[in-house]
Amino acid sequence: MSMFKIPKLVLSQGFPSLNRKLAQTTKPPRSLISILELSNQELSSLVERAAYHKTQYKSGKISSQVSPSLFGKVAALLFTKRSTRTRISSEGAAVYFGAHPMFLGKDDIQLGVNESFYDTTKVISSMTSCIFARVDKHSQIQELAQHSTVPIINSLCDRFHPLQAITDILTIREAFGFTKGLKLAWVGDSNNVINDLAIAAIRSGINVSIAIPQGIEMDEEIISKGQQIAQETDTVLEVTHDPKKAVKDANVLVTDTFVSMGQEAESKAKLAQFQGFQISSDLASGAAPDWKFMHCLPRHKEEVTDEVFYSDRSLVFPEAENRLYAAIAALEGFVINEGRLV
Amino acid sequence: MSMFKIPKLVLSQGFPSLNRKLAQTTKPPRSLISILELSNQELSSLVERAAYHKTQYKSGKISSQVSPSLFGKVAALLFTKRSTRTRISSEGAAVYFGAHPMFLGKDDIQLGVNESFYDTTKVISSMTSCIFARVDKHSQIQELAQHSTVPIINSLCDRFHPLQAITDILTIREAFGFTKGLKLAWVGDSNNVINDLAIAAIRSGINVSIAIPQGIEMDEEIISKGQQIAQETDTVLEVTHDPKKAVKDANVLVTDTFVSMGQEAESKAKLAQFQGFQISSDLASGAAPDWKFMHCLPRHKEEVTDEVFYSDRSLVFPEAENRLYAAIAALEGFVINEGRLV
Amino acid sequence: MSMFKIPKLVLSQGFPSLNRKLAQTTKPPRSLISILELSNQELSSLVERAAYHKTQYKSGKISSQVSPSLFGKVAALLFTKRSTRTRISSEGAAVYFGAHPMFLGKDDIQLGVNESFYDTTKVISSMTSCIFARVDKHSQIQELAQHSTVPIINSLCDRFHPLQAITDILTIREAFGFTKGLKLAWVGDSNNVINDLAIAAIRSGINVSIAIPQGIEMDEEIISKGQQIAQETDTVLEVTHDPKKAVKDANVLVTDTFVSMGQEAESKAKLAQFQGFQISSDLASGAAPDWKFMHCLPRHKEEVTDEVFYSDRSLVFPEAENRLYAAIAALEGFVINEGRLV
Repeated sequence: MSMFKIPKLVLSQGFPSLNRKLAQTTKPPRSLISILELSNQELSSLVERAAYHKTQYKSGKISSQVSPSLFGKVAALLFTKRSTRTRISSEGAAVYFGAHPMFLGKDDIQLGVNESFYDTTKVISSMTSCIFARVDKHSQIQELAQHSTVPIINSLCDRFHPLQAITDILTIREAFGFTKGLKLAWVGDSNNVINDLAIAAIRSGINVSIAIPQGIEMDEEIISKGQQIAQETDTVLEVTHDPKKAVKDANVLVTDTFVSMGQEAESKAKLAQFQGFQISSDLASGAAPDWKFMHCLPRHKEEVTDEVFYSDRSLVFPEAENRLYAAIAALEGFVINEGRLV
Repeated sequence: MSMFKIPKLVLSQGFPSLNRKLAQTTKPPRSLISILELSNQELSSLVERAAYHKTQYKSGKISSQVSPSLFGKVAALLFTKRSTRTRISSEGAAVYFGAHPMFLGKDDIQLGVNESFYDTTKVISSMTSCIFARVDKHSQIQELAQHSTVPIINSLCDRFHPLQAITDILTIREAFGFTKGLKLAWVGDSNNVINDLAIAAIRSGINVSIAIPQGIEMDEEIISKGQQIAQETDTVLEVTHDPKKAVKDANVLVTDTFVSMGQEAESKAKLAQFQGFQISSDLASGAAPDWKFMHCLPRHKEEVTDEVFYSDRSLVFPEAENRLYAAIAALEGFVINEGRLV
Repeated sequence: MSMFKIPKLVLSQGFPSLNRKLAQTTKPPRSLISILELSNQELSSLVERAAYHKTQYKSGKISSQVSPSLFGKVAALLFTKRSTRTRISSEGAAVYFGAHPMFLGKDDIQLGVNESFYDTTKVISSMTSCIFARVDKHSQIQELAQHSTVPIINSLCDRFHPLQAITDILTIREAFGFTKGLKLAWVGDSNNVINDLAIAAIRSGINVSIAIPQGIEMDEEIISKGQQIAQETDTVLEVTHDPKKAVKDANVLVTDTFVSMGQEAESKAKLAQFQGFQISSDLASGAAPDWKFMHCLPRHKEEVTDEVFYSDRSLVFPEAENRLYAAIAALEGFVINEGRLV
């Protein structure tokens, strides 16, 4: 498809530097693409910084703590899809550091429609300090990161959701006081959220058991790389089609929407696949006594009962709030500190 | 309707704290819902502070006067309907105190559609410092105020418009130098604007005469509570169907749109009811010699003649500008000072 | 058309001050309407300041350099059409000086639809520090400038595009180190961009040769005033229908979209007129050896070959970035310094 193609360049004697130029382009700045691209220590550091800034924020010490380096600068939010939590947390993070968040929704900018993706990326990045990108395709995040002269923060694509994973590790750490040795059970779809969460959990010493319906497959790279990392961190990463098995002795039960935005048409057929996947006190009866529930929201009834969702076991609202601190940590690490996370 | 229902919770032995939790929720912060909920002194103080900040703003002393408490924070604007004045004044107030206004329009967020109103309120309020809410139904303001962990500033609902009322008392005070003993005539519809303006005027010692067409009724609570307050403040609150009677000896003539946003379909029939309600120099011939005209805008020709609207008697543009200072006073009183207004 | 009509006022004995008032209105603040309204020295000063702020911005000295005069203030962006570069650069400029950019798109505000253009202008300008206006008709910019109590920065109308012209002179100055004696060739449509660019180039000592297709005419005032200025600055301004003639010995080759936003329907017929107008290495063979290419973006293939567009001769990305510094210079000159540019 021409939409996301890098411009094809014609070589010419009259333009000796043409090909050289694109080849020699300065190394792009470090972007946050997925948890896969972080080391265990880097992830841990991001979670640590998120916790630190949460304390600062809660104690009202923002103004004295903000880095002046983003004051007077713009942080672009390039969103091809609506996303309340992602937007509020990204804007809040930019504001925390004194930057102005500029929201560009699908009506403000249509990537690849009126001009090439490449051109738009060059232009936006030349006038901003970073781009929070919430796009459809992972390939769009990759293209942005390749051509942008400022860091890209992947704020959700169809393959990864690293800010949610940082958020969730922070939330687990707050709830249990530690992460090492816990068991996390995912009962839901194979999607961007579990892709990054599985890797983040494994990197944090948390065992992961993923229950997905028959007929749905996990991302192969996630499973193979995840199992490599699991060996290093002495954890287990397993995939099953049996929710009860995944939930067994789990400390953290996590799910997400069964039908993603844009897939509503296939909704009915897909929901049928998820019979037995609703998280309820019944399903949770085999979990560890201290089990907690998480969900990245928005939530639909088929995924979890009201009883669980609105109970003391539910971490969903602190989890949502933690999105802010994860975005703050990402902005600090990738923009202010230019990718030096540890 | 399920849209604005608080989640129905199922009691269960396994979840002992569930019901308790919702019942015990910390007392919500004080919100600005309507002028009814203020004391006379509190209203007077808000008007006073609005006047103070106007002086500051006009003299360019903003930066030295802003409270640092909102720097680095987000003020959400949750708008289910478009509203130029409300938006600009709310954003301007947030900016005055160093906060970042985040505008969430109907395309950004649809209350109650993709997730419950309750969930959305919890999430937004956890990442922001306050919510300027411009909604359709008064019940939505009430729900927001009940569940939000940050103050809600009612920026217009179908029953109240407190920021406009604060604005109007400020505007009257500027035009006459005082408020006590003046007479305000409303010639128009029974709506949110007059509901709060009537109470605000009565609380400020201004006599109020409301002319509404035959077949239209005033809000009963406004009239009954308004008349109680009128006894305390030695003023009169009366309702008539005769514009001439209302205007008689009035110092301030006020009207508003006859057909509200969303009611355009019923427009023709409704306009017929308002025969004789256009404010003109002719209708105003029985008013006090120093009479002035106010309108919260946008204005349509049927409500007031050009002659009056663009005359020296018209306060409409200073009135519009005063919306900014009313919003500043509300932000200071309800957010920075946490509801301690006097 | 009533849409942009100043309210027609009826004289009346009872309203002696009515007409007087509109006649006596305080002189409106100085606005940036077009390059025609600047002196040569004023343009040069704006370019100089843009270059200065670029150095500041690049060296990260923003925070210490910002004028406190816009902190706590709102800069309105009134955009009736989408425009990525214009929006990002205007928002960035406001943020650079500590102001909050408030974006009002066509869904936020419809000029002249729900209330008169005059009323809306009065209201918006009463609560903001300036208005970046990106409108359809030049008459709308004129009306805004006439009634606004704050400076209007013309950010694109159908007749002028002064911020692009300031940008382009800055970009040429950076590429060549000077402007005097250069030749600029425009190969494209007769439009807002070349109107202001021609005048800006002539004011900067650059000779201008404009190639437009047969059947298309240049703006008469631009040509006649341009030729007057050309005499003063010892330059030549010529119009031709032959791209090769325009390009001959030119140092700067510039084009723009052949089919403007909103004209897509007439696209096919119009494109036929532009046969031979695509800028290519072949067309450029008669240019000066050091020739460079500029385009205000977004770009379409028919206007310029990839070979030229992505070559070292292409200044398009630095040019786009320079939009930010042009907007900063305009904000400083017209808002902070109240129109005193030299």
